[in-house]
Parts: sequence; structure tokens; C-alpha cells
Amino acid sequence: METPLNCAEEQQPPPVLPDAWSTVTPQEPTTDRNDKGKAVGFVLVHAGAGYHSESKAKEYKHVCKRACQRAVDRLKAGALAVDAVTAALVELEDSPFTNAGMGSNLNLSGEIECDASIMDGKSLHYGAVGAVSGINNPVLVANRLLSEAQKGKLSAGRIPPCFLVGRGAHDWAVSHGIPPCPSEKMATKFSLSAYKRNKHKMELSEKVETGFNHHSKKRRQASETENGSGLLDTVGAIVVDREGNVAAAVSSGGLAMKHPGRVGQAAHHGCGCWAENTSTLNPYSTAVSTSGCGEHLIRTMLARECSSAMQCEDAHQALLEAMQNKFISSPFLASEDCVLGGVIVLRCCRCSDAQPSPDIQAILVEFLWSHTTESMCVGYMSAQDGKAKTHISRLPPGAVAGQSLAIEGGVCRLVSTATTVD
Amino acid sequence: METPLNCAEEQQPPPVLPDAWSTVTPQEPTTDRNDKGKAVGFVLVHAGAGYHSESKAKEYKHVCKRACQRAVDRLKAGALAVDAVTAALVELEDSPFTNAGMGSNLNLSGEIECDASIMDGKSLHYGAVGAVSGINNPVLVANRLLSEAQKGKLSAGRIPPCFLVGRGAHDWAVSHGIPPCPSEKMATKFSLSAYKRNKHKMELSEKVETGFNHHSKKRRQASETENGSGLLDTVGAIVVDREGNVAAAVSSGGLAMKHPGRVGQAAHHGCGCWAENTSTLNPYSTAVSTSGCGEHLIRTMLARECSSAMQCEDAHQALLEAMQNKFISSPFLASEDCVLGGVIVLRCCRCSDAQPSPDIQAILVEFLWSHTTESMCVGYMSAQDGKAKTHISRLPPGAVAGQSLAIEGGVCRLVSTATTVD
Repeated sequence: METPLNCAEEQQPPPVLPDAWSTVTPQEPTTDRNDKGKAVGFVLVHAGAGYHSESKAKEYKHVCKRACQRAVDRLKAGALAVDAVTAALVELEDSPFTNAGMGSNLNLSGEIECDASIMDGKSLHYGAVGAVSGINNPVLVANRLLSEAQKGKLSAGRIPPCFLVGRGAHDWAVSHGIPPCPSEKMATKFSLSAYKRNKHKMELSEKVETGFNHHSKKRRQASETENGSGLLDTVGAIVVDREGNVAAAVSSGGLAMKHPGRVGQAAHHGCGCWAENTSTLNPYSTAVSTSGCGEHLIRTMLARECSSAMQCEDAHQALLEAMQNKFISSPFLASEDCVLGGVIVLRCCRCSDAQPSPDIQAILVEFLWSHTTESMCVGYMSAQDGKAKTHISRLPPGAVAGQSLAIEGGVCRLVSTATTVD
Repeated sequence: METPLNCAEEQQPPPVLPDAWSTVTPQEPTTDRNDKGKAVGFVLVHAGAGYHSESKAKEYKHVCKRACQRAVDRLKAGALAVDAVTAALVELEDSPFTNAGMGSNLNLSGEIECDASIMDGKSLHYGAVGAVSGINNPVLVANRLLSEAQKGKLSAGRIPPCFLVGRGAHDWAVSHGIPPCPSEKMATKFSLSAYKRNKHKMELSEKVETGFNHHSKKRRQASETENGSGLLDTVGAIVVDREGNVAAAVSSGGLAMKHPGRVGQAAHHGCGCWAENTSTLNPYSTAVSTSGCGEHLIRTMLARECSSAMQCEDAHQALLEAMQNKFISSPFLASEDCVLGGVIVLRCCRCSDAQPSPDIQAILVEFLWSHTTESMCVGYMSAQDGKAKTHISRLPPGAVAGQSLAIEGGVCRLVSTATTVD
């Protein structure tokens, strides 16, 4: 049964943010007002953990704003979390500024291959595509895989797939009504020129190395590609809907100059995104979406780790410890000197002790982001906000990317007035 | 520094096996004898959780025996766990009777696409390939990805991939010296005839359904393909070497009649295999390899769940609870009426309190297997055994596949005599 929510004005204390980690003033809590009991929810998006130059800050913020608006439009129209999170992702993928869908990084062969996944906290189903070419909105394929899997078995008792890759993923998508897009139309002037620069850098670096050691001509330089210098701008979103369901999604063009067929965390269950409604075991519903170096995020399964951590009492402390112990200092990345990633996280629970009347239920949403990269661009909005708030979070001055972290967040209170809905 | 081990004759009590779950007498402990201090280790393999007919039992056991021998040969030659586990997998893949490498299930288009992965408990690195065609031994590609990643960054600071799929995986493999194999040579008479039968069943099932509902002609029958009837014979192995390092690997042709591009648990980090050496946080080294319905194993991340569970004191009870709570009754599979899978598990620790002298160290290996499928074929061997033991484990009479489980295992004591090695 649906329990529409609206937002009441009620101040919540912001989470305690330790000065050592945070570069900005703690966010003011987002307060939502709607006396007419319209359906509400909350969305938090990211346009990647990496490096966001001041010169492009406006575009990144703008796309986050639009993505939030798209999700909120869907929530207001009565959509559940999975649909709203998909709408946000489509907007993020369509931007030529993000490394997802249109304008994605090119691989070694000069082609675009995308990864995306989505998870529904209510059914706990998950859908993903990896290394798929010629599809503008990979998240739509992930979403469709999820919804097809929820319908049960295929003909002759076959189990529907949750993860498709490459040509097979493309063909499945097209046969399910998702329009193909010629790969050359997905590359932008920016992604093509980045490819040329990266190729030139690689050739130079390999020549230098060949000079040192003829027999290991391809190996092991510290000079940086566009990714090395920070452009890891995978995108993602997390949503809680009017029923308190959570959903999460992520989409990425992957590392620049990656080997064809390379699949990163965005297609990997537990690594790119995670969403889990509250249950007898979990007091909180949680949703997470990650960004950064796919291999680091796969090996640490960071999305799921952060989700589990968020069941602890203090959300901020829990995320801080998860990022420190399960990522920066993770034994799984002991050989890495630079651990690059970022997460957006939300958790929510019903607050039965603070209801103004038995007909009204409140959901407290705590939302946070954290990153070890130089910056991370985020946006957030509740369905009752007039517009989204956006922010480019940066590491504190002097902090070393890959070894330190930034962490910030806020709280939002959603109040349901089931009896007043028309 | 290497600490070669040999096996001393020393009886250990077998783990307590609850009658309700176990169909066979608890295994006698494997005891190993070597007074000359030769390097030792232990291997446990599986030829799939599914249904193994009595008529083919001999072949399944035989291939498990050979796989154990291959791993033990490598251990005796001084190889570490990762190499030994790879050798076992190559043997399992080369058998036309298993659903891995040669003789794999064909997909909807009549092609073979394989998944494989490997994990090294020492470095915690992982390598995987998904939906790769034209490679006889996918585990060799996974192994090579793992070893290349351990070398550090590629030219121009690029991060080496840990997971490659499809054509890109094939091309990477060939460029790294792994020989291609024409796909038509990988199909066997058996896999081709199974494909024809399955195709016919699908066509029949879709016709029947079209009769009922013209608009949902592809959907939702309960009749079974070859997989539905139980042939889920993914293969895998887990090894502990003379230094106490663990490694795990898995390889699969995937579900029969799967959609092209479908990737199952065998390529999925945390789902197909897991290996983790002992650490300050973990008293035991653990290794796990899974088999069964890939989608169920992905959504529950069963390999990693079992590995975590094995840090509890009672290995048998821990695995029993993990299979029951994290698989059969998992909230992630709440919508499934039939949850199909199996695991092989080992854990080991140094027993400092039971050493005959300061120069000698003992490692206690506890090994178990458990499955919800009708049967599971396993083999195990220590480097000091003359030959492997093999066993087709079956559910107790009357138990329902997908809802009940079988669990069995044994113990093995490896004793190092570092000072006596020549």
C-alpha cells in the first residue's frame, strides 16, 4: 500500500563533521514544506569523484541540478525509487560533460564501451550491463534487465539474466525496445580530443620506457593519462521514494584508454551501487553509489561495504570509518599507493517516536558523500524543494588525493500525511 | 620466505555432521605422511553442483581425480596456491564432461561463451573473464590478468584491468600468448545434442504459451531446459600451499540457452570464488569456490559470504548457517522458489600449540562442501596422498532440491619441517 509523504518544516541537527576531514561548512539541513500532503521523496546525485576544474564547475553543477529535477518530477508523478533514480541517470548520461553515455571516455581502440547498474532496495533485484557499445543510455538497459528479472522465469524454465555484456547486451537492449545509437554519435569533440592527447602521451611514455628497457616496452610508467590526472567522472544517483523504498544506480564510460572489454565497478554487483530497504535485520534503508577507479572499487566492494557500515548508529562516523578502513587502508589495496574513489550514501528510517499524530509518519533521511579524489560534484533535492542544491566537494588544502578523504552531508525529514492526499 | 611443509600422521576428529543434512558417513580425516619434509599442500575441487547421473559418475570422479593430481604435481614442484589451483582448473576445463572450457553449454545462438575467475589469498588480487569465446582455458586468462595486475601500472599510468569480457577479453588473451581455439572445436557431440534438445523444448514451450496468450508469447513457463533439470556443472578448485597461502578459482560455460553476453557468477568478484589469507583481522585463511545458478550466486555473493562465515569457531556450523541464512533463506532470493547452488570451502590456520618442535609448524586444514542441488561432485587430495579421493554428494532421500541442503567435509593436518628440506 502506498503511503504518500509530504515534507513538514522541522529542523534537524546537521551531522557532526570533523574539521580535519571536511573542507566546507557542514550543510544546512534540507527542510521540506508541503501542507497539502503531496507525494515526496529525496534524491542525491553525483557527477563523479575525480577532478572538476573551476572552469567547468558550472556545467557539472548544472547537470546535477537537472538530474535531481528529473528524479523529483518522477517522484511527484507517483513513480517509485527505481524509476526516479533511472530518470536522474538518463539526464547524467545525456550530458556531454560526464563520463557516462554521451561523451564517455574512449577506449584504446577509440571506441566507447559503457557500464551501468541499478539496484532496487525493495525487491533487492539488480540489473547491469558491461562494455556495451552503441547504447546512449546504458542505465535503461540495466533498469530493463531488473524489471524483466522481476517477472520470473523465461520460456522453458530459463532464469532471466541480471548481467549482460558487449554485443549480447546491445542486441538484448534493442530487442527490448531500447534505441541503438551509432557509436560515432556518442563521442564528443571533448572526448575525441582527450583520446588524441592520451594516445600521444601513451606513445611518448612507451618510447621513453623502450629506451630504458627494450624487452618491457609496454610497462610501468608513472606518467598520467587523463584519468590519472583525475577525470574519473562516473555518475550515479540514490533515491528514497514516498513509500520509503530506496534505489541506487551508477553509469560509467570507464577509464580513458582502457582495454576493450574492460568492465569497471559500475557493472559490478556490490561495487558500483547498492540499495537495501529496511528489514528485520537492518534498522535503516540504505542506498549507495560509487565513483572512481573501477578496479579499486571492485576489489573493495565499496558500495556494499558502505551500505553495511550505515547500519551503525552514527552515520557520519560509520562512513568515515568505512572509507578509511575498507578503502584507503583496505588490505585489498595494500599494494596501491593511491586509492581513488568516492561515494554518495543515504540512509533512512521511520521515526515513530516523533510523529505529530497517528496519521502522520516521518522518515528521517541522512545523506553523505565522501571521496579520496581531489573533488566530487554532488547535487540533492527533496520533492518539495523548489530546486536542487549542488556542491563541488574538495579535499582540504594540503591533503593528498588517494590518501586522505573529505566527508560531508546533511539530513532531511520527510513527513507523510496519508489522510490528506486527494 | 618459503616454509615447506610435509604431512605427519596425526589423527584429527572429523567435524560434527548433523544427520539431518548429511547423506553419507562423515569423511575420515585425510592424514598425510612424509618424514622427509617435502613440500606439501592440499586441494579440493568440484565438477559442479547440479545433477550427476549414476551413469556418468565414473567420468565426473575421474576428472576430479585428475584435477587434484594436476594441482598436487604443481605443489610438489614448488608452485604456490595460485599456480596449483590454475592447473586443477585447466584439467577440469579440458574435460568434455564438465560445463567449462571444452564441451561447455551453448547459448541461445549456439555459441560457447565462458566465464572464469581466480583469486589469490596472499595478494588479494583477482582476475576474471566473462562471456569470452574461442579460448579453451578461460582460467588461464583470469590467471594472467591477475599476474599482470600484480606488476603495477601500465604505460602512461593506466591501471591494469582485473575483469575483461567478450571480444576484448579474447584479443587480450591472444596478445598475451594464450592460444585461441576455434569455437566449433570447443563444442562436443554431447553439448551440440543438448543444444538441439533444448532448442526444441523452448520452441514447444513457446508454442504452448502462445496458445494461451498471444501477446506474451515468450513468457514464463515452468518446463525445464537441461539446466533446469540440473546440469549446472560449473567447475572450481581451492588450494592451500606449503606456505599456507590459499587460492580459489572457478570456470563455467554458463546456463544452457543463456542470452549471448550473459555473465554468471564465475566471473563475478565475491560470487564465484574467494580466497583470503589469514590477517590481523582474520584468524583463518579461507578459500571458497561456488557452482549453481549464476544469478542466485551473484545476488547473494555466496563465495564471499561463506568466506566471512568461516571465521567463526565451528566451521561446519558456520557453513550450515551461511548456506541456510545467506542462500536458501536469503532475503535477496525471497522471490525464488528454488535456490540452486553449491560451495566448496576450506579454512586453515597454524596450530602453534601442537608443534612437536620449534622447527616444525602444523597447519590444520578443514574442508567442506555443501549444496542445495540434487548432487555435487568433489575430489580432494593432499600433496602426500598417493591419489585423490572423490565423491558424489547427494541430497538426503526425500529432500527437495533448491530448498534443502547437504553438507559434508573432513580435516587434514599439514606439518612443515623446514629444516629437513634439501
